[in-house]
Amino acid sequence: MTYGTQSLHRLIQRAPSEIGAIDGDWRRDWQAIEQDVRRFAGALLRSGVSPGDRVAFLSRNSGRYLDYVLGCFWAGAVINPVNTRWTASEIAYSLENCQTRTLIVSQDFAELVPAIAAEAPGLRDIIVDAADVPDGARSYAQWIADAPLPEDRRVGGDALAAILYTGGTTGRPKGVMLSHGNLLASANGYLAFPGARPGRSYLHVAPLFHIGCLSGMFTSLLAGAAQVFLPMFAPDAVIDVVERESVSDLFLVPTMLRAVLLDPAFAPRRMATVERIVYGASPIDDTLLDRAMDALPGVSFIQAYGMTEVSPIATLLGPEDHSGEARRAGRGRSAGRATSSTEVRIVDSEDREVPRGTPGEIVVRGGGVMQGYWGMPEETAQALANGWMHTGDMGRMDAQGYVTVVDRLKDMIVTGGENVYSAEVENALSAHPDVQQVAVIGVPHPEWGEAVHAAVILKAGAVADADALRAFCRERIAAYKTPKTIAFVEALPLSPAGKVLKTELRAAYS
Amino acid sequence: MTYGTQSLHRLIQRAPSEIGAIDGDWRRDWQAIEQDVRRFAGALLRSGVSPGDRVAFLSRNSGRYLDYVLGCFWAGAVINPVNTRWTASEIAYSLENCQTRTLIVSQDFAELVPAIAAEAPGLRDIIVDAADVPDGARSYAQWIADAPLPEDRRVGGDALAAILYTGGTTGRPKGVMLSHGNLLASANGYLAFPGARPGRSYLHVAPLFHIGCLSGMFTSLLAGAAQVFLPMFAPDAVIDVVERESVSDLFLVPTMLRAVLLDPAFAPRRMATVERIVYGASPIDDTLLDRAMDALPGVSFIQAYGMTEVSPIATLLGPEDHSGEARRAGRGRSAGRATSSTEVRIVDSEDREVPRGTPGEIVVRGGGVMQGYWGMPEETAQALANGWMHTGDMGRMDAQGYVTVVDRLKDMIVTGGENVYSAEVENALSAHPDVQQVAVIGVPHPEWGEAVHAAVILKAGAVADADALRAFCRERIAAYKTPKTIAFVEALPLSPAGKVLKTELRAAYS
Repeated sequence: MTYGTQSLHRLIQRAPSEIGAIDGDWRRDWQAIEQDVRRFAGALLRSGVSPGDRVAFLSRNSGRYLDYVLGCFWAGAVINPVNTRWTASEIAYSLENCQTRTLIVSQDFAELVPAIAAEAPGLRDIIVDAADVPDGARSYAQWIADAPLPEDRRVGGDALAAILYTGGTTGRPKGVMLSHGNLLASANGYLAFPGARPGRSYLHVAPLFHIGCLSGMFTSLLAGAAQVFLPMFAPDAVIDVVERESVSDLFLVPTMLRAVLLDPAFAPRRMATVERIVYGASPIDDTLLDRAMDALPGVSFIQAYGMTEVSPIATLLGPEDHSGEARRAGRGRSAGRATSSTEVRIVDSEDREVPRGTPGEIVVRGGGVMQGYWGMPEETAQALANGWMHTGDMGRMDAQGYVTVVDRLKDMIVTGGENVYSAEVENALSAHPDVQQVAVIGVPHPEWGEAVHAAVILKAGAVADADALRAFCRERIAAYKTPKTIAFVEALPLSPAGKVLKTELRAAYS
Repeated sequence: MTYGTQSLHRLIQRAPSEIGAIDGDWRRDWQAIEQDVRRFAGALLRSGVSPGDRVAFLSRNSGRYLDYVLGCFWAGAVINPVNTRWTASEIAYSLENCQTRTLIVSQDFAELVPAIAAEAPGLRDIIVDAADVPDGARSYAQWIADAPLPEDRRVGGDALAAILYTGGTTGRPKGVMLSHGNLLASANGYLAFPGARPGRSYLHVAPLFHIGCLSGMFTSLLAGAAQVFLPMFAPDAVIDVVERESVSDLFLVPTMLRAVLLDPAFAPRRMATVERIVYGASPIDDTLLDRAMDALPGVSFIQAYGMTEVSPIATLLGPEDHSGEARRAGRGRSAGRATSSTEVRIVDSEDREVPRGTPGEIVVRGGGVMQGYWGMPEETAQALANGWMHTGDMGRMDAQGYVTVVDRLKDMIVTGGENVYSAEVENALSAHPDVQQVAVIGVPHPEWGEAVHAAVILKAGAVADADALRAFCRERIAAYKTPKTIAFVEALPLSPAGKVLKTELRAAYS
């Protein structure tokens, strides 16, 4: 049976004194990491956490994340990494939804604790890694002090490893359940892909609560690369740490890649150690890709397409498909081909495979496909109908199996690599007393790919005040979900059945 | 869930017209292979084979092997590839032991059918791929004609994929049960290993009924390499096919490697397309490795260590550990380190890990470890005690995790890459009316690594006739198990408890 901590054991065995985790000036070798992982697992067990229990952590990227993830696996617990951009209400929902009883909070988020605790009554243990611990929480230092060093439970295979919350079409986040086997299948699919292998060191710059970055932890462990942690994205910080730590591999969403290239601190020689850049989570435009390939000619660029529900990689577009010839043939616009751990198809609304070149829904099968959505048997059955994960993305496939994503079936916006479900934003705005009707769409944005835009019909007599509406929203949902722009309109385009025609609404902005 | 036919679907999708299987002049593209695999699966289902049923095939290496293996997986059946070197009795035992009802036989082995049928009454269906079909069997051509083309059952994960018979310490072969997940874990461990990836084409020259060669089928499928089949090993045939088909990858046991290098037909330029040679299944001596590396300086040499029970790779010694410096440091004598799919330890008789450098039993954990021995719960529990596969090999591990195999706990001989259990040979010889007592050991042999040797005490009045004893043996067990040499002795070295002291016996020959 495969298990999540296996690679850690191998690395301790073969390279105990090699540096495995770098976070600023904090550097640990594998032996020290093992001690910390065991200690974390011991503290969990001492607190009454049982195998299968969910443990959440609310933290920026940090070397500590290795302890959180591997320590939970060591103890047999299930990780629930919290989206740090969410409001206290959103966080509380994700904790309560899957009955998370234990929450670890880093110093940066200590002030959110009272609000989260108030809305998540099921929490039994809140542990805060700060000198000043809020009421109702306890100190991480005390919690972990003198914890026992238990033996690894070596939990793996089909056992649940992670619950990752992702936006929902119905307006509420869904808990994607991934097993240890799921996470390892996706990582193996990446490692078996020609040219895709973390080398010396992998930089975690995208947030680790997203599977796109978290999966880099598993591929790095399998490949034996050191992991470098950057607390949050800043283009000059990326350039600095790449240069200082001789980073060889990183994953960036296109918005980040653009910011790095445009930053005054950028110089090709400062990133000369980089061997591979994986980009994904949202489409890239040709101009940006040209610029990146010109500026960093020694780098292999790899595009990844996937989603949390497939752990996450479905297809990869490799370095050889980034050649001038391949790009002239249109491959640069494709998301690549199924990895060795997946099977990908394009199907019609009856789940029948369509001829090559015909658009249809992209469906995925294989080792990485989730076990389901926590506590949502109907949504799970729908998503996994006929044994295939229905991505909700429209795409077409060419004769060589290259998939191009052409549209989204789901009413979703991708802004700076984050998925925003329109329904969630519409729910928040509709709660405002002045709002009669609202429709939320994504509009093209040069920096973020798409930006959240709301078209609002006000109630009779109400006064248009976009700032007030945005502030109202911001209290309820994360900043990245809050509309960047609001248009006050007299009417919305409606279908005969009275449904808002978003395609017409979007057409006005394209 | 991962499944055994997944890679086939990907290859059909991305490269339907690319050649996937080459067997002499018989070349098939992936589209044609899919048709044949589906047809084979359809014929199985039409004959009443149900998911989980065992299907055996007795054939030399052939392009047809792809159909057998993937056709069984497509239909949800379990493969039982038969050792072609065995006698009819040995084959019948392996079929009856796991209630195999269906046996496919290639033309070369048609004459064995009556003898197998006589000793394996459980066989329901014997299908022979020959013009002249023996009594009680039917024609492959008729069996497969107009078979339906069923949908793939996509069986995978923990479902049983294969039963592979391996010699047993008690004198009877044991059926090693491997799941789809087991086979894929080992293949992924190989693909994730730096420098180990099948390139354009993989040559099956070692027999496919051995996991060492069969696993090359799965890595090649995952990597998308074409597979070249050679019916049986002959050094000049290897050189010819490598040159003709531009083979990039092959697995050889040391005996084969030696024969290729010494063959008059060998010339480095004829093997210039080779990128990687994996060797294993028995130790290699420095002289042979030197010769190989000198003769083929462009080839990456990779040593694999493992066993059927771990599907099969436990450790790999990579190209970088074949450098002059690494070899001077003694790494050439090691079997390498745990792959990304395994964890390897050295333990004492109480299963406690021993300090580095101390010899102990090599135990293995991970995704490739077998489900157990068919119908042998006690042997399974013993082999998998405490969650680790006990290899029966003695080894030690250095500070960097390199494992060196130093001895075998099991009373086993490795001759030309084949494992021979002494007990099985002793059982065969003891049945002879002239034999009073016998002890079988391996003695050093320049070509085969070890050769089977028997020390025999005759009954009073019996006349020593080694040829007669060898002929008697040959009727009961395979040629490679039959002693190459027999010494007639007056007494055997015995322990106080009356057990033969094989270490003393071996010492006389070392």
